[in-house]
Amino acid sequence: MLPDVQGLPDERGVALDEVGIDGLRYPLLIADGQGIKRETVATVDMSVSLEAGVKGAHLSRFVEVLHAWRDQLDATTALSLAEDVRTRLGTSNARVRLSFAYFLERRAPITGARSFSEYECTLTAAASGGANSVLLQVRVPVTSVCPCSKAISDRGAHNQRGYVTIEARPAVDAQLWFDDLIDVAEASASSPVYALLKRPDERHVTMAGYDNPVFVEDMARHVVVAMRSDKRIARFRVHVVNDESIHNHAAFARLDWTVATGDKDA
Amino acid sequence: MLPDVQGLPDERGVALDEVGIDGLRYPLLIADGQGIKRETVATVDMSVSLEAGVKGAHLSRFVEVLHAWRDQLDATTALSLAEDVRTRLGTSNARVRLSFAYFLERRAPITGARSFSEYECTLTAAASGGANSVLLQVRVPVTSVCPCSKAISDRGAHNQRGYVTIEARPAVDAQLWFDDLIDVAEASASSPVYALLKRPDERHVTMAGYDNPVFVEDMARHVVVAMRSDKRIARFRVHVVNDESIHNHAAFARLDWTVATGDKDA
Amino acid sequence: MLPDVQGLPDERGVALDEVGIDGLRYPLLIADGQGIKRETVATVDMSVSLEAGVKGAHLSRFVEVLHAWRDQLDATTALSLAEDVRTRLGTSNARVRLSFAYFLERRAPITGARSFSEYECTLTAAASGGANSVLLQVRVPVTSVCPCSKAISDRGAHNQRGYVTIEARPAVDAQLWFDDLIDVAEASASSPVYALLKRPDERHVTMAGYDNPVFVEDMARHVVVAMRSDKRIARFRVHVVNDESIHNHAAFARLDWTVATGDKDA
Amino acid sequence: MLPDVQGLPDERGVALDEVGIDGLRYPLLIADGQGIKRETVATVDMSVSLEAGVKGAHLSRFVEVLHAWRDQLDATTALSLAEDVRTRLGTSNARVRLSFAYFLERRAPITGARSFSEYECTLTAAASGGANSVLLQVRVPVTSVCPCSKAISDRGAHNQRGYVTIEARPAVDAQLWFDDLIDVAEASASSPVYALLKRPDERHVTMAGYDNPVFVEDMARHVVVAMRSDKRIARFRVHVVNDESIHNHAAFARLDWTVATGDKDA
Repeated sequence: MLPDVQGLPDERGVALDEVGIDGLRYPLLIADGQGIKRETVATVDMSVSLEAGVKGAHLSRFVEVLHAWRDQLDATTALSLAEDVRTRLGTSNARVRLSFAYFLERRAPITGARSFSEYECTLTAAASGGANSVLLQVRVPVTSVCPCSKAISDRGAHNQRGYVTIEARPAVDAQLWFDDLIDVAEASASSPVYALLKRPDERHVTMAGYDNPVFVEDMARHVVVAMRSDKRIARFRVHVVNDESIHNHAAFARLDWTVATGDKDA
Repeated sequence: MLPDVQGLPDERGVALDEVGIDGLRYPLLIADGQGIKRETVATVDMSVSLEAGVKGAHLSRFVEVLHAWRDQLDATTALSLAEDVRTRLGTSNARVRLSFAYFLERRAPITGARSFSEYECTLTAAASGGANSVLLQVRVPVTSVCPCSKAISDRGAHNQRGYVTIEARPAVDAQLWFDDLIDVAEASASSPVYALLKRPDERHVTMAGYDNPVFVEDMARHVVVAMRSDKRIARFRVHVVNDESIHNHAAFARLDWTVATGDKDA
Repeated sequence: MLPDVQGLPDERGVALDEVGIDGLRYPLLIADGQGIKRETVATVDMSVSLEAGVKGAHLSRFVEVLHAWRDQLDATTALSLAEDVRTRLGTSNARVRLSFAYFLERRAPITGARSFSEYECTLTAAASGGANSVLLQVRVPVTSVCPCSKAISDRGAHNQRGYVTIEARPAVDAQLWFDDLIDVAEASASSPVYALLKRPDERHVTMAGYDNPVFVEDMARHVVVAMRSDKRIARFRVHVVNDESIHNHAAFARLDWTVATGDKDA
Repeated sequence: MLPDVQGLPDERGVALDEVGIDGLRYPLLIADGQGIKRETVATVDMSVSLEAGVKGAHLSRFVEVLHAWRDQLDATTALSLAEDVRTRLGTSNARVRLSFAYFLERRAPITGARSFSEYECTLTAAASGGANSVLLQVRVPVTSVCPCSKAISDRGAHNQRGYVTIEARPAVDAQLWFDDLIDVAEASASSPVYALLKRPDERHVTMAGYDNPVFVEDMARHVVVAMRSDKRIARFRVHVVNDESIHNHAAFARLDWTVATGDKDA
């Protein structure tokens, strides 16, 4: 019988918030917005809290539990996975974070040409006995045209790729998925971006963007207004960054965790 | 009718080796070693040569062609994809490079516990009319124990994660796939790494590694010897890097493109 | 006179926590532990809060203020820089974050051979009128030997490079600098790492590490114990990660913001 | 006396092109275009060739040699450093590659406001007894406006940040420094980028860019024409990438190593 070093007592009296594994790449089957399972590649972090008196966590159990759940992950099963981790590790709290490429087939705005757009999504599930919770995060590429550059110039306006990141905690019993957040993020920008645009599409995107210039501040505020009034959302935060085309640095705007209030007239 | 700016003439007399798209993330179905299609997430680069007299390449066609082939990619169809790119863009040469996570289910060496190991693979196909060719590249994580540290110390030996990268051009009509290169890379190290090891496995890997210490030089040479005598391989190169555990920098060894000679007794 | 689009009113009623620039690379002169100015390369984030009624922040002013202070940065002047940002942008809160390579000359443990060790440091200064504050963060590379692997194996033990990240808010009027945090981080591990080790040094580091095996949990707790009893520290958090040599993923331990209590006997 | 494992014979008959260290971060003093030494942070790779009969290279000697030269690096001394590496390691070939942030103070085009622009530079020195050589590489951020988007749209045009990478081998006895290559790269684009632009500058950059649209192909060809006719340059290659603002992927153009021919009328 091999000694169990992790199970030894620890005398220092220091509980830790998280002990776990980080950066594991794993093939997962994750439900899309229609509930259809799609295989993708995830980067996985999993952790548990560690009470003060125990030397260490048994990290190999994380991968065992993940392997058992890997072919059926959605918001509900991710919570079951986290709860399994908590039970198997014998701790108070467990957290599972799955970051993966999420693809939606898009049609170019004029020609209708089909291609996939990639969105970086993260599904986080936390189990702590009673109070379990899920977080959804999306990072959505967009394009933005600068209102200042347009206003002060006789012609043209600088524009660039930007990324809108939204993290949201769904309200109790609410149906919320990544597609909902992606829609909000894309609507906040001068235009979505596409993997495939033919010339009539490029003309459309160029002019539509020019006609709808937005600062990072505008994009962040658009998201805030949309999220605040959505009854499916309990809390959210937003971060928008623009890879400025006239600078070699970025511009950003950020709102930290905010309570959504649902219908403002209620 | 929108003007075709890319199709305009260019007077500078400068042909370009490659014009294309880079960093496109796309969902692809790629055959595994048994020919079974697996969905994965690829980072895609596609390019064509550009003759001196033409202003630009029509980049949107790359994504159209990729979209048509995305659900049936292996060494043969990747060449067809490259050939389609060449034809659609009307150029002399086309190149397609697909980099993706490739997973193999592994069993822990003692307990047999199952988990997936990830390998970063790249499939490159080049079409130039007559001389089409494919390249396979793998980047394989391993562990290595330092022979010097072991020899000069009374106990212990520093060890670390390393990465063995092999790129190979298959011989004509040879059957060669990523699994073959992964096997060579893992055999070159002190031990493979695993996503899941139980305690008896960890004991085994620790001692097996300690009993088989290798420098980056040793790993590179092991690969070279194995590749040189493999009749399925026309040319190859190898790069090994160790994320040294006693330093904050890496050690590496490299052999550039080398002709494999097949059976050395022939 | 060019229009001031940023200065326009905004009707949406959404204040933002931060608007600013991100990822600016700049040459800065930063004081080392002896107060001597050293030129380094920083990645700079700067932001201000934005009140609900204003459309945008004037981002170019950030770089103007940074340029004026760039040759004289320490904990005190970073606060002056943040305060200048706040005043120039006319806002309630301003934050400046400077991340840079910080080098200390180290001597190998036996031969005394000299080389520089690099530490990734971040100095954050926040100004909000009355309550200004500074944060110091270090990311320190170390080596760790696994206690479990050592205990269950007849010979050898897996070990790897790890990174100890400590973030601390100094107590009022306390003298605290990066060197202090680096010392705590290095003492938590099986051994520091070095850019230059001759063979007698490598023997020493190998055996010293083997004799002092630590989990990520142990390193985190070592840091916590040291920080908790340090009167110069008001609050801190710690994150330790090991790039496991037998896995292709990392192990980590984390304690979130914790109040230091100074002398525990007080 | 500790055993010299690296010095042992190797029976496999495999010479290696490079064995060395990779990713070492070090503080270096590097001459700017006026020969003035500036302290910067470099990422250093150093290697030697390894003959077939020797087991390994003594990697610690790399850092010893670098430490001795670190405060006096330019094109000439980098060659001396490489030659010292070759001699100290007792090999046929040695290569040193220093990648670092290089800053130039720039003035905004209308207001003259001062700020630093960062350029990623790499100085490579190779020593092989007789034939020593130096390579200079720069990666220069720029902005580019799309000629197609402008031509097909009634208003506006998409634009984005791009990066022009030039690598050049100077002709024998030629004076060539990073500043020369940076000038070529910036002139190839729609406009340079700046860390600091006031509103009159932003207006200027916006309209100047709109009036000078270029594809990645145009930028690459501009560089080729400029480099081909420069007598100070023996060989060069160029790579241009645009972070397309209407897509979530990049466009690129590339010309591989090309002989410069000096004065075309000669």
